[in-house]
Amino acid sequence: MMRKILVIGAGKSTSYLLDYLLGKSETENLEITIGDINPAAISSSIANHKNCSVIELDIFEENARHKAIENSDIVISMLPARFHIKVAEDCVRHKKHLVTASYVSPELLALDKEVKEAGLVFMNEIGLDPGVDHMSAMQVIDRIRDKGGKIILFESFCGGLVAPEHDNNLWNYKFTWNPRNVVLAGQGGTAKFIQEGTYKYIPYHRLFRRTEFFEIEGYGRFEGYANRDSLNYREAYKLQDALTIYRGTMRRVGFSKAWNMFIQLGATDDTFTIENSEKMSYREFINLFLPYSPTDSVELKLRHYLKLDQDDIRWDKLLELNIFDNTKKIGIPNATPAQALQKILEDSWTLKAEEKDMIVMYHKFGYELNGEKKQIDSKLVVTGENQTFTAMAKTVGLPVAMAALKILNGKITIPGVQIPITKEVYEPILKELEDYGVNFKEYDIPYLGYNPNSVVN
Amino acid sequence: MMRKILVIGAGKSTSYLLDYLLGKSETENLEITIGDINPAAISSSIANHKNCSVIELDIFEENARHKAIENSDIVISMLPARFHIKVAEDCVRHKKHLVTASYVSPELLALDKEVKEAGLVFMNEIGLDPGVDHMSAMQVIDRIRDKGGKIILFESFCGGLVAPEHDNNLWNYKFTWNPRNVVLAGQGGTAKFIQEGTYKYIPYHRLFRRTEFFEIEGYGRFEGYANRDSLNYREAYKLQDALTIYRGTMRRVGFSKAWNMFIQLGATDDTFTIENSEKMSYREFINLFLPYSPTDSVELKLRHYLKLDQDDIRWDKLLELNIFDNTKKIGIPNATPAQALQKILEDSWTLKAEEKDMIVMYHKFGYELNGEKKQIDSKLVVTGENQTFTAMAKTVGLPVAMAALKILNGKITIPGVQIPITKEVYEPILKELEDYGVNFKEYDIPYLGYNPNSVVN
Repeated sequence: MMRKILVIGAGKSTSYLLDYLLGKSETENLEITIGDINPAAISSSIANHKNCSVIELDIFEENARHKAIENSDIVISMLPARFHIKVAEDCVRHKKHLVTASYVSPELLALDKEVKEAGLVFMNEIGLDPGVDHMSAMQVIDRIRDKGGKIILFESFCGGLVAPEHDNNLWNYKFTWNPRNVVLAGQGGTAKFIQEGTYKYIPYHRLFRRTEFFEIEGYGRFEGYANRDSLNYREAYKLQDALTIYRGTMRRVGFSKAWNMFIQLGATDDTFTIENSEKMSYREFINLFLPYSPTDSVELKLRHYLKLDQDDIRWDKLLELNIFDNTKKIGIPNATPAQALQKILEDSWTLKAEEKDMIVMYHKFGYELNGEKKQIDSKLVVTGENQTFTAMAKTVGLPVAMAALKILNGKITIPGVQIPITKEVYEPILKELEDYGVNFKEYDIPYLGYNPNSVVN
Repeated sequence: MMRKILVIGAGKSTSYLLDYLLGKSETENLEITIGDINPAAISSSIANHKNCSVIELDIFEENARHKAIENSDIVISMLPARFHIKVAEDCVRHKKHLVTASYVSPELLALDKEVKEAGLVFMNEIGLDPGVDHMSAMQVIDRIRDKGGKIILFESFCGGLVAPEHDNNLWNYKFTWNPRNVVLAGQGGTAKFIQEGTYKYIPYHRLFRRTEFFEIEGYGRFEGYANRDSLNYREAYKLQDALTIYRGTMRRVGFSKAWNMFIQLGATDDTFTIENSEKMSYREFINLFLPYSPTDSVELKLRHYLKLDQDDIRWDKLLELNIFDNTKKIGIPNATPAQALQKILEDSWTLKAEEKDMIVMYHKFGYELNGEKKQIDSKLVVTGENQTFTAMAKTVGLPVAMAALKILNGKITIPGVQIPITKEVYEPILKELEDYGVNFKEYDIPYLGYNPNSVVN
């Protein structure tokens, strides 16, 4: 008997996801239905697969949505996070399992009781970040705990970057995911974490100046800046006793200090729109954020405002982006500064057809075992194949697809609205991911912590 | 026949207001009713005046509010701005005039049609800032226009400071008004203005570094930082053709650069609360915003973080506030950083009983007349008498009281929800304010502008 999987939303991240499911469709008796608002965009190699059917689906058309969900055995929603709730409510009604790669919203969590009563699995946050980070972290944490160890430090960083062979601009960065999220990174609120038992807060305009460095063997040095709230998973991971909890985003060294120039200018602001932005040149855009002068050039005003020395590499990074160009236009009516800046960056930071992306992840686990302090660093690098089969699509899409199949096969059974932090979930998925080149490397290193002598400040 | 004035809310700013009305009550046949939620706090010299009666009034008790308003001929609302709308709706219902010192809210403006149809005057923004600034600016602008001149530049700055004889701390600042507004100043959104026809935007974390200087004869030098939206009154003042429009707040020179330290730290943040803030020392509070170190002192970390040289006067300003004190406690549970900082500042910046405040206002009017460019600078300084009769209470309360009486006497008649920018309103009130020592001094100076040679950048 065929089992029916409904995949709603076939965007960028679904290449590996669909490939995996269609590849298993013969042996596993799967019928894949892709519901998308724009079915024409789905590649014919997928759409023409004998076990695949494509339907036009607008999730705001209630009847069509009901019908598609009712007709399936499990639903994978790859829609933007805010649209999951409609799908989730239908899944409850028709008693279907649900898998998403998105953060659990309060509305989704509110369905937990009903989901449990119906014996359903609503698996969320099972992409890359969140997803692979949860699973790989909890695997090490549980292993340490099973030996009787106690976690005293947990740090976790992740970044989407360009593969070394195509890492050829001064920023060591290109867009491999939603550019808007990159421009707005850090704007959701003050960054919070704890270090050696002390709360630390970093405002947005200092966030990119408080970085930490990481070394990945064979790939060199990286830096990380703090995510908005490192403490979100303290309870879920049972880290209430850890003295240091720090989560963040990875970039190549030097990116953050240079990015901070745009923050200092105010050019990442997304709270107001600019008059005449459409016909504005890149140069005029930058001048919006500099003091008026009848005689001085935009260049000198910027150097002075940001205190850039003659030989500061950040200056070359700005030139590389053509921000002083007087002919290139923003071309977007009523753009916010963030939208205008994104346009400028996309000129320089868009991956070319032949270029590959790269995912890096870095966990640090400090723990106490038998009176001794120890540390494990766990590191992951995944590079993409091409522009369709990217490292991002792989690490987001494969865990989603694997989770869906394992739920369907009764390998993942614990009901409820959940994230992948239980052994039942992370053990088989991490194991299978290894076959696809998603391999963490672990290093036992001396425990450094931050406070060896417990000096109080 | 006695005319009845209802004054709702008898807070800090009402000393001069009530004094003025009670002083006129005999000759003008006025009966003043003060409605306040806490009538016991009203001084007996006011409460016992033969033409004054005091009632306990909670404006959320609808019947009591209706009755009090119905019983009056005109209503003065000195409540916090968000509460005016309830009073205003009753004023429409019972056909009573209304005077407030607050900004016109969209809800209040929505009553304009009804107010006009009923022939009522709803006068708002008739305190100091907004209020005296509108009136004094429009008086000069209208005079220039009546001569055939065209306004090409308008700048307007205002500040509440401490009188020179009590200006004795390193910050040259003490709280003379709501301290919370001082701590949160600039946080409402990106500052916007136009300079020589070019839009300029300043993000919060740079706002206090982009100051302009002002000289007031006999009082020395001041500085100003931009208000959130300088363009708000462009239409009301009919300044659509002005190349420069800039509004801001005045402080003594050096305040802004020092204040910026707290912004850089993140200590003015009002968007999250601090765990354990109640028992936290000032030193621990500051350390929340500094990188962790097992060995370095909070002092050195701060010096390094803010790049303060050994001889930087800003260091002494910080010491003056005792921010490194390990014994003084914040004492507020779940305080935001802004609330905690306010507590620290109130220790040092609270006016003593014998200390006086000072109001400064500075307008610049650039204009073209007969092909010539000219400029008028108009300046105001008012100092307080004591802690009750402050310069702030005078410049906020007197215009409100005068407007109320003039409306009652049929001297201000144009109906509608309005601000004091018409001759009918500003001429008699500015004239009468002179009798109370509110005198602008005007200086004809060469037009400087910002762009004498029209060099384009």
